[in-house]
Amino acid sequence: MTVKRTRGRPPAGDAADRRAAILDAARAKFAAQGFSGTSMRAIAREAGVDVSLISHYFGDKAGLLVATMELPVNPIEKIAGVIEDGPDGMAERLLRTFLTAWDPHRDVFSSMYRTTMSAQDSQAPMLQLAREVLVSTLMEVLEGDDRELRATLIASQLIGMATLRYVVQMPPVADAAIEDVVRLYGPAMQVLIDAAADR
Amino acid sequence: MTVKRTRGRPPAGDAADRRAAILDAARAKFAAQGFSGTSMRAIAREAGVDVSLISHYFGDKAGLLVATMELPVNPIEKIAGVIEDGPDGMAERLLRTFLTAWDPHRDVFSSMYRTTMSAQDSQAPMLQLAREVLVSTLMEVLEGDDRELRATLIASQLIGMATLRYVVQMPPVADAAIEDVVRLYGPAMQVLIDAAADR
Repeated sequence: MTVKRTRGRPPAGDAADRRAAILDAARAKFAAQGFSGTSMRAIAREAGVDVSLISHYFGDKAGLLVATMELPVNPIEKIAGVIEDGPDGMAERLLRTFLTAWDPHRDVFSSMYRTTMSAQDSQAPMLQLAREVLVSTLMEVLEGDDRELRATLIASQLIGMATLRYVVQMPPVADAAIEDVVRLYGPAMQVLIDAAADR
Repeated sequence: MTVKRTRGRPPAGDAADRRAAILDAARAKFAAQGFSGTSMRAIAREAGVDVSLISHYFGDKAGLLVATMELPVNPIEKIAGVIEDGPDGMAERLLRTFLTAWDPHRDVFSSMYRTTMSAQDSQAPMLQLAREVLVSTLMEVLEGDDRELRATLIASQLIGMATLRYVVQMPPVADAAIEDVVRLYGPAMQVLIDAAADR
């Protein structure tokens, strides 16, 4: 698609145009107002389409956020696979899935990360993704107290490990076998998943 | 000190001049050749002083690296206090010490972090500090197998948490009470300290 779309202009008739118009509108709204400050309805209005078309193409708002980022890995699908078997052993599944998915795309991760850090913008797409997909989904599965703080700390473990492995490439984390990272880091992450309600 | 020093020029006679000459030489050498690629002798030669003077002012090479960074917190002193009681309960001491020291200087941490990430330089002072002070010191205290990988993963936990708390300021990690972070994250970090030799 090379069609350049003007903000608010009703899109041309074909499906690819309407899909592109929705993504353009969503990128602009998410950047300006953040994920929770943006309604599907406002995006539909901006793109000149019916709101039901957004659900048709992208499922929900998180799906739309992920689509705007054009990632080589779909984090919604990946994390759905991780949490479907519940909290038992979830840390190892989360780490193995994350590393298997991103190891082949470490340059993409690194570039996205550096862009996010240099922007000093709490609405940066990668941060919205971390909050609205990773933390939000983890929170659904955690039991007990402090679920949001624990989910965010699990995300911080993942982000810290990925920073050393992909971004600054510090050995031995940068070149350790996936199974070694899973074996050693998994139990450390599982502690936050299992933390008892009465701690 | 506002005296600007020319590389390699023998310093003037007073102590403040000699100290500044050593720091200038060390900054240049660490940036160009990294920590392990730089000898105390080479720094002394560059600064035009006797090598014993470096030990006199800065203790050892790690002390010199820390001095070049002009940090509001001395990480060598902090981590010495953390490890002196050994691995039992060390994660909680490490977290409480780190947070108590850096919470009042979150802007400095954040600025240093962003500079490091935008530089794409494995010799960035902050990364040398993480490897040569944090990871190296943790490795001395860890027992069992995979000590270097485990020490680096502990560092990644600390870096990930500090990234969310100070740099991107993601709630609830950004504004959680120190004791809540210590209570929840400490046990997750302690797993990597305690990991048995025969795992």
